[in-house]
Amino acid sequence: MPRDAFDGFRWIDEAARGREAAGLVRTLRPRPPVSALLDLASNDYLGLTRRPELTGAAAEAARRWGAGATGSRLVTGTTELHAELERELADFCGFEAALVLSSGYAANLAALTALTGADSLIVSDAGNHASIVDGCRLSRAGTAVVPHTDPEAVRKTLDAYGGRALTVTDSIFSVDGDAAPLAELAAVCREFGAALVVDDAHGLGVLGEGGRGAVSAAGLAGDADVVATVTLSKSLGSQGGAVLGPARVIEHLVNTARTFIFDTGLAPAAAGAALEGLRLLRREPALAGRARTVASALYEGLTGAGLTASRPQAAVVSVIAPSAEAAVRWAGDCRSAGLAVGCFRPPSVPDGISRLRLTARADLTDRQIRTAVDTIVATAPTG
Amino acid sequence: MPRDAFDGFRWIDEAARGREAAGLVRTLRPRPPVSALLDLASNDYLGLTRRPELTGAAAEAARRWGAGATGSRLVTGTTELHAELERELADFCGFEAALVLSSGYAANLAALTALTGADSLIVSDAGNHASIVDGCRLSRAGTAVVPHTDPEAVRKTLDAYGGRALTVTDSIFSVDGDAAPLAELAAVCREFGAALVVDDAHGLGVLGEGGRGAVSAAGLAGDADVVATVTLSKSLGSQGGAVLGPARVIEHLVNTARTFIFDTGLAPAAAGAALEGLRLLRREPALAGRARTVASALYEGLTGAGLTASRPQAAVVSVIAPSAEAAVRWAGDCRSAGLAVGCFRPPSVPDGISRLRLTARADLTDRQIRTAVDTIVATAPTG
Repeated sequence: MPRDAFDGFRWIDEAARGREAAGLVRTLRPRPPVSALLDLASNDYLGLTRRPELTGAAAEAARRWGAGATGSRLVTGTTELHAELERELADFCGFEAALVLSSGYAANLAALTALTGADSLIVSDAGNHASIVDGCRLSRAGTAVVPHTDPEAVRKTLDAYGGRALTVTDSIFSVDGDAAPLAELAAVCREFGAALVVDDAHGLGVLGEGGRGAVSAAGLAGDADVVATVTLSKSLGSQGGAVLGPARVIEHLVNTARTFIFDTGLAPAAAGAALEGLRLLRREPALAGRARTVASALYEGLTGAGLTASRPQAAVVSVIAPSAEAAVRWAGDCRSAGLAVGCFRPPSVPDGISRLRLTARADLTDRQIRTAVDTIVATAPTG
Repeated sequence: MPRDAFDGFRWIDEAARGREAAGLVRTLRPRPPVSALLDLASNDYLGLTRRPELTGAAAEAARRWGAGATGSRLVTGTTELHAELERELADFCGFEAALVLSSGYAANLAALTALTGADSLIVSDAGNHASIVDGCRLSRAGTAVVPHTDPEAVRKTLDAYGGRALTVTDSIFSVDGDAAPLAELAAVCREFGAALVVDDAHGLGVLGEGGRGAVSAAGLAGDADVVATVTLSKSLGSQGGAVLGPARVIEHLVNTARTFIFDTGLAPAAAGAALEGLRLLRREPALAGRARTVASALYEGLTGAGLTASRPQAAVVSVIAPSAEAAVRWAGDCRSAGLAVGCFRPPSVPDGISRLRLTARADLTDRQIRTAVDTIVATAPTG
């Protein structure tokens, strides 16, 4: 067949036309180094990623350790810097051990595939993040998807199964910023000898004493049956992910987790920046509370003006839009007015409802919060 | 249940005992910033990761763009630096477009899940990398695993299937460093209107004119039915991965690939270092040939001394060990003698045969090559 004759990708064009007709086309919008926009779209909850302490630590780590980790963590990809980050992360969050991977996505895949087998059941909240859903799919376990934040449904599912089981949930759900009932889930899991895996991507740095996270806040950190996953790319301002848990769990992951074993180690610059982010959070523990205060102020301002928003349990506030097209237009109008907000549409929303997604950075001033609220209210779709 | 009573992880201890009995325990060995060991274990094929140009570019990118990308590439995680890297990478490798992800693992998961559907068949080489295997598992497609480097088996499989299909292969297989018959595979795929996805992780920077990779060397770069995945963490000395292909394929990934959409963008420091690695390779195109020359010299030296090694098609040479325990002892003896080599054992080897894995860095001197060969020969298991 001549090269030009190939059209085994014709279906891709059909899919593109379908997206266009539905108003669901996504395009990348490269941003400049310095933007005039007020940022309520990033996950830089504590405003750390631009802090000179972090960028300096990234630069210093690259110079000292090299631009890359050079190999799998099991071969040449583990530096003393990685080990230091793992020790301090485990210590800060209250776990026995930690394992750093190149992303939070990889951390969830690692935990869910390595801690289950063909004879296991994973009980997964219907609102869980895509990386958890993919972890369930990639594991050899059966998966039971249970209604959102419903410990009783988990209980019934575990009761009916009877075998080796693991329950997995986000601590704070990324779309609406609502919280999982961790204490209740842990109690239910204990009733049936099931393990609990909590993705604390949006809790670390925001919830718990000094930002130790939602698992710590629920009094579950360090428990024998609890494993947490976190990202280094949100509150800690860098890149990467980690699994936190009992030492035997972490040793098991080192030996069996494919997304750990067969991936290049996290770049030293990212490990160095995350470690500095952690130390900065220790030095400035009030950052966590400030992020929550900013989120509450956004919520109060928006709902006070008549908009429908989710009551924030951490640093995420989402505002309901009447349609995907309206959400895109709304976000665009905010942008034209100098405000960057997230715009979540299908298929990135579990319930099909499009939203603006706002993140409450700890370094927003009261004046910036007012500006943000005023802009969102002024550009809101009518009717 | 009291916390201490939990032993739903008892099976983890049993698995650990099994590994111990089989001599297959893996432990992390954190390395210092400067090592006295001669490195033949990393995937830093061109010796770029420590070059001041790369570490300087990483440092500069962190200072200019921040320590992290702050969000999904679709929200705030795409900087002009990411876009620049994508343009130059596509141009260098001869493709219409490129998409950068946080790892090569994520790139393979993205390509294989987004370019197939429930009605597709993926035809996958038995020796493919774990990230390809996981991509097949994560996709909704059926998977047919075919014998290693066997275009005729691919032909028969495609012929028997008849529907929408995609063939996936490593260009250079990571364990033995042997090559896939890319031209033959492309011809077979074209016979049946199937797409070809090539993981060029170990070809980029080593094969093709000036290191443009195995897909370029096979004359397939830019073809309408060919997609390549690469890593930024091997020859380019940094971290991350990319998918290269027709613009419509890349647009489709932007819109549908979950490991792209739901992951934080690659850290600016890693993007900056990879871009500088690419530019350095353009300035010093002889690096690619030098890596191949070093690999040949290692192979000739080792087989000349009576060892069984794989004939290198790129920069990887593997040396057969009599058992997993012997491989571990051999690698340990090399290390004691000042030489770092990779040690691949089950389950990281497709055929169950343990090996030393050597990587031929372009910056090894002839003297270092002789030292490496002498050390491996002197420490070889007897009998």
